[in-house]
Amino acid sequence: MSDTSTTITELKQLVHDFVEERDWQQFHSPKNLSMALAIEAAELMEHFQWITAQASRQVGADRDKLAAIGEELADVFAYGLALADVLGVDLADTIRAKMVKNAEKYPADEYRGRYGGQ
Amino acid sequence: MSDTSTTITELKQLVHDFVEERDWQQFHSPKNLSMALAIEAAELMEHFQWITAQASRQVGADRDKLAAIGEELADVFAYGLALADVLGVDLADTIRAKMVKNAEKYPADEYRGRYGGQ
Amino acid sequence: MSDTSTTITELKQLVHDFVEERDWQQFHSPKNLSMALAIEAAELMEHFQWITAQASRQVGADRDKLAAIGEELADVFAYGLALADVLGVDLADTIRAKMVKNAEKYPADEYRGRYGGQ
Amino acid sequence: MSDTSTTITELKQLVHDFVEERDWQQFHSPKNLSMALAIEAAELMEHFQWITAQASRQVGADRDKLAAIGEELADVFAYGLALADVLGVDLADTIRAKMVKNAEKYPADEYRGRYGGQ
Repeated sequence: MSDTSTTITELKQLVHDFVEERDWQQFHSPKNLSMALAIEAAELMEHFQWITAQASRQVGADRDKLAAIGEELADVFAYGLALADVLGVDLADTIRAKMVKNAEKYPADEYRGRYGGQ
Repeated sequence: MSDTSTTITELKQLVHDFVEERDWQQFHSPKNLSMALAIEAAELMEHFQWITAQASRQVGADRDKLAAIGEELADVFAYGLALADVLGVDLADTIRAKMVKNAEKYPADEYRGRYGGQ
Repeated sequence: MSDTSTTITELKQLVHDFVEERDWQQFHSPKNLSMALAIEAAELMEHFQWITAQASRQVGADRDKLAAIGEELADVFAYGLALADVLGVDLADTIRAKMVKNAEKYPADEYRGRYGGQ
Repeated sequence: MSDTSTTITELKQLVHDFVEERDWQQFHSPKNLSMALAIEAAELMEHFQWITAQASRQVGADRDKLAAIGEELADVFAYGLALADVLGVDLADTIRAKMVKNAEKYPADEYRGRYGGQ
């Protein structure tokens, strides 16, 4: 897995260069990027819209389907990385801090097997 | 920046453990995770809803605002990482492949300074 | 049911007056309204995020839940009506025309019991 | 304008018949319909993603663009009507009640010219 050796900064840089090469920073305000991210999230969701939650667990078995889903997920991440880049947000720190906060909000003992708005 | 030394796998693992400790895999079907991701993307967008694109470029100057936005972005990534984890998707590879595809679809020379549905 | 005697124009007018009384037209560009609508749609979706499709069919039995869902649905419609108002779109005509198009795209005989991206 | 003479019930019925003729009620759980609505809202938003709020106020001048936007708006309403139909929600009453609540939350005198999360 490439994920084991790829840092967040490397992916941020990849997206940063892509945007810069096209002089697209002018379109990439945080407002517009948040819209783009939400739109890609909806396109991702589209793959699961009419199937059951059960069936959605099996999509990995269909290579073409999984590839299509992976592309939408990549778009979501690309815009998320672009937004973090523009805002100067350190994602690793921010995600870690949020997970600590979530752990306090949803103590494992209390929420085991129970969702809680999550 | 912690992003320079944090790999995707480390963040995936963080989210994976959080879910496992609460026995929440049962709720985390790809279908439900795609909904959760879209909902968090909308909460992120909420911060930019009524302000101009111009003003959205200045949010970084307001520390409290930026922290609140960072938390929503963290939630988006957390669900994205959980989804990649459940589907067995290597994000680094998938994002790289998608950016190559995007580069072919939007040649830098042709799209410089022009958005194209992007 | 009040729906049997209420016209689209009456609801449009209700929303129009609300916006005008607050001088909010300045914020209600089509761009911003489309974001607001998507955000409310996500808040509506939040009620169904972690429950099964089956369970979602029973929400009508819980009056408080149904009231909360109704409020989110009302927000979605309010922004949809505001957008139609700002754009000068006749919703009844537009919806009827779209349903004719959908009927051509998904002939009843061919799609009976089969979803089709819908 | 057809909106002046068309009731909510008439549009609900139109969507109801369309779904029934295709035996699609089985897919139209409230959960799935809320996803469909959010997806259509994102498709609507896509038209405004990269343009300024200012430019979005001019889309009405481009007939083809307006027609395309109208179709997405029609889809949003169609799923909203289907959801109200499935849940047995009277939209006119619910929207009126929500606007009263909004009016109390955002008194006109206090919020004139100021948005408030709205």
